[in-house]
Amino acid sequence: MHFTVKNCLINVTNGYITTDVQIIDGKIAAIDSNLPIIGEVINGENKLLLPGFFNAHTHSSEMWFRASIPPLPLELWLASLYDSPPINVEQVYLTALGTAVETVLSGGTSVVDHLILLPGQELETIAAAVRAYQEVGIRAFIAPLIQDEPFTYCFPNGKSQLEDTPFHATAQDILKMMETAIQRFHDPANGMNILLGPTGIQLCTDDLFIGCLELSDRYNLCLHAHLLETKAQEKLAQEKYGCTAVEHLQKIGFLTHKTSLAHCVWLTDNDIKILAETQSTVVHNPLSNLRLGSGIAPVLKYMQAGVNVSFGCDGSCSNDSQNLLEAIKIGAILHNITDQDYQTWITPHKSVEMASLGGAKGLKVDDKLGSLTVGKIADLVLYDLTDLSLLPRTDPIGLLILGRPDHAVCNAWVNGKKIVANGEITTINVDHLKQKLFNLSNWQMRQKSPTFMKLEPHYRQVTGL
Amino acid sequence: MHFTVKNCLINVTNGYITTDVQIIDGKIAAIDSNLPIIGEVINGENKLLLPGFFNAHTHSSEMWFRASIPPLPLELWLASLYDSPPINVEQVYLTALGTAVETVLSGGTSVVDHLILLPGQELETIAAAVRAYQEVGIRAFIAPLIQDEPFTYCFPNGKSQLEDTPFHATAQDILKMMETAIQRFHDPANGMNILLGPTGIQLCTDDLFIGCLELSDRYNLCLHAHLLETKAQEKLAQEKYGCTAVEHLQKIGFLTHKTSLAHCVWLTDNDIKILAETQSTVVHNPLSNLRLGSGIAPVLKYMQAGVNVSFGCDGSCSNDSQNLLEAIKIGAILHNITDQDYQTWITPHKSVEMASLGGAKGLKVDDKLGSLTVGKIADLVLYDLTDLSLLPRTDPIGLLILGRPDHAVCNAWVNGKKIVANGEITTINVDHLKQKLFNLSNWQMRQKSPTFMKLEPHYRQVTGL
Repeated sequence: MHFTVKNCLINVTNGYITTDVQIIDGKIAAIDSNLPIIGEVINGENKLLLPGFFNAHTHSSEMWFRASIPPLPLELWLASLYDSPPINVEQVYLTALGTAVETVLSGGTSVVDHLILLPGQELETIAAAVRAYQEVGIRAFIAPLIQDEPFTYCFPNGKSQLEDTPFHATAQDILKMMETAIQRFHDPANGMNILLGPTGIQLCTDDLFIGCLELSDRYNLCLHAHLLETKAQEKLAQEKYGCTAVEHLQKIGFLTHKTSLAHCVWLTDNDIKILAETQSTVVHNPLSNLRLGSGIAPVLKYMQAGVNVSFGCDGSCSNDSQNLLEAIKIGAILHNITDQDYQTWITPHKSVEMASLGGAKGLKVDDKLGSLTVGKIADLVLYDLTDLSLLPRTDPIGLLILGRPDHAVCNAWVNGKKIVANGEITTINVDHLKQKLFNLSNWQMRQKSPTFMKLEPHYRQVTGL
Repeated sequence: MHFTVKNCLINVTNGYITTDVQIIDGKIAAIDSNLPIIGEVINGENKLLLPGFFNAHTHSSEMWFRASIPPLPLELWLASLYDSPPINVEQVYLTALGTAVETVLSGGTSVVDHLILLPGQELETIAAAVRAYQEVGIRAFIAPLIQDEPFTYCFPNGKSQLEDTPFHATAQDILKMMETAIQRFHDPANGMNILLGPTGIQLCTDDLFIGCLELSDRYNLCLHAHLLETKAQEKLAQEKYGCTAVEHLQKIGFLTHKTSLAHCVWLTDNDIKILAETQSTVVHNPLSNLRLGSGIAPVLKYMQAGVNVSFGCDGSCSNDSQNLLEAIKIGAILHNITDQDYQTWITPHKSVEMASLGGAKGLKVDDKLGSLTVGKIADLVLYDLTDLSLLPRTDPIGLLILGRPDHAVCNAWVNGKKIVANGEITTINVDHLKQKLFNLSNWQMRQKSPTFMKLEPHYRQVTGL
């Protein structure tokens, strides 16, 4: 796990320099010109070296339904997803591979998988994702997606107006399964991390949140949840708690410096203060928020309040891609329409920092990851800047973020281990993966699903449509 | 110019069929299963055939400054662009090639180039773009970007507070040059069209608008202009005319069924009615409008009012890519946050129609182009659906628009002539182009430009910052 990148571009204050970067034992050992060669030599000419990005929120197995659900708001989109054909453990494995490959080939070296669990096969589901991520070699943070309330509870007025059977497992059952998962799979030294991932206030009791907190304390794990993705959830929180979701989560202690929260679209100014005080992280999923019509997360306000913000692709049927550069581009430029004062806008350089160091901070690994710093772990990506999509030559980071790079990732390493060379994944056979995904699927347009049909009138009524 | 696509997918009402498509003499001659083979056989298996899209608004030579201007609102961004290093006619040619290649490889078979003219070399500039588009083989609509007022007039209160020298040419000079350009280059039968393209109300006198109208009538040409891209322009229109820009343009007769208008972000409901009544077309440039913080064009309102809408990438330093699929994706999903009722949202299938037939309508060629219809001209694109970014198989058009396709364009034809085969441009040497763009540029970060520094205080004052 030694190598030396010769003559690559790196960004420094107000510009770029051409330099060498030496990696020894999986760590950045030196950054300087004319370094002696140690291990493999990587030609860095006309290439930009950056710390790996974090795909800080996704649901890998949604890839099976990529682009199959029509444009719908989250709650009705979920109703459609709910009626998707069942998938098996092998399929979970395949889409975790696919998610890892797309993430890596768009600059990500870490992925947070808020992993949908197959009922009755929870540990097998996690094991399948663990296997896939280890095979690709991406650093993984698996947050098994847990809930203890039935699906219809995510609708405002759901309890009073919609009937549903109780959820098939209790908070206690789920927490017990989670403890087994932690003991079996959590292995940070080998790039495999388990997070506690309650779905969100819309589908979890306080018992489940508090149980997650206890496990987080006992095993020193981070927490991850959805938060206020839609206006309907804002309404639901008021119905459920008589206060905002953020106020409630703070009250029960769920907001901590180890907590990252996906979406955060519908927060009040006071909620934002609470996120800053508790040092919680916001994971911004701009494409999913547009696709589902959720709204624009007030990211500039978060940044002004000192809240850490990172980027996620979200699952592949609410985006519908795991290309992190695309999410970063839109996540950066989208906010220019929310504040007339351009001095607050996110620059390409700032967005790169959010995607790397911001991602690391949200998972409490910023002492080891997230920047090109001597002593840090070598989760690195080398971008070839000679594709037509990145020409003519101007500002390399500008081109990468504001452009629409085609196949820019030339090399990538996680923990100093090579996972991409010459633009190709070196660890798994991607053609084989493509063939399997192809064989297990069919081209077709979806029809309206039964759950959608059943819930649509209620949704329109409670949202005033 | 004969060929037969065998066994390709095409979309029909409520789904897809696998069929053959026969092209004879550059026209779609038959669409049916088991057609006899005429000319070259194209294997359409696992591929989707669509009509070519229109990149309905761009400025090709901005590609030289791609990603080099920091996030700024239009007026200050223009001040920075204004101070860019000068380019020459050869460079215009190279970026027209680049614009054509990126457009074609993302599904476009037509481009509207609102072409920035080199002062004193106006006809040479147009000739360079004409040559480039003819070499690539893309259908081109060149709208030489003309103005007869100096740059600072684009700022509200500009005339009273900012000094500037008069523009170097009069409306009459410019119209004379345009008439020569029309006589020399307008050749629709060979895919080369000239449009009348006054910049917009911010930089043009009524004399110029009216002169364009007269030329449009005399030579039966379409009209193209920017319209109300920023809130500053809305204010400027009130200062200049005492009414909205749309009301003024209607009064002088500039809004017609042959007029396409880029941006249209800041229109009133009455303005929208006027666009509908005059049958004008809106060209939506979603990425540029986000990047420059211009706002979200009220596209759902346009569509509800019956206004034709197509998509553009805008110039490569306000986006900063000519990937049309990216513009269509964002242009489709962006509006989901502007109307809570998902029944009004743009579906992937609708966005494909806007990008093809909508583009054709805006240029008055919808009788010949824009749909897969027997008798229409074969401007066609065949998408390979087997890349990882388009797997697993679900809804092909959903995948293409909501996903983030990598190198999906497998074949493309304009007027039945092959310009892409096996994912590669067949008409020009793209490696050669890349080398030239590389050699004529350098990696560097821009510093704040003198014009920017000079105008920023005025901008902040008139916009209340």
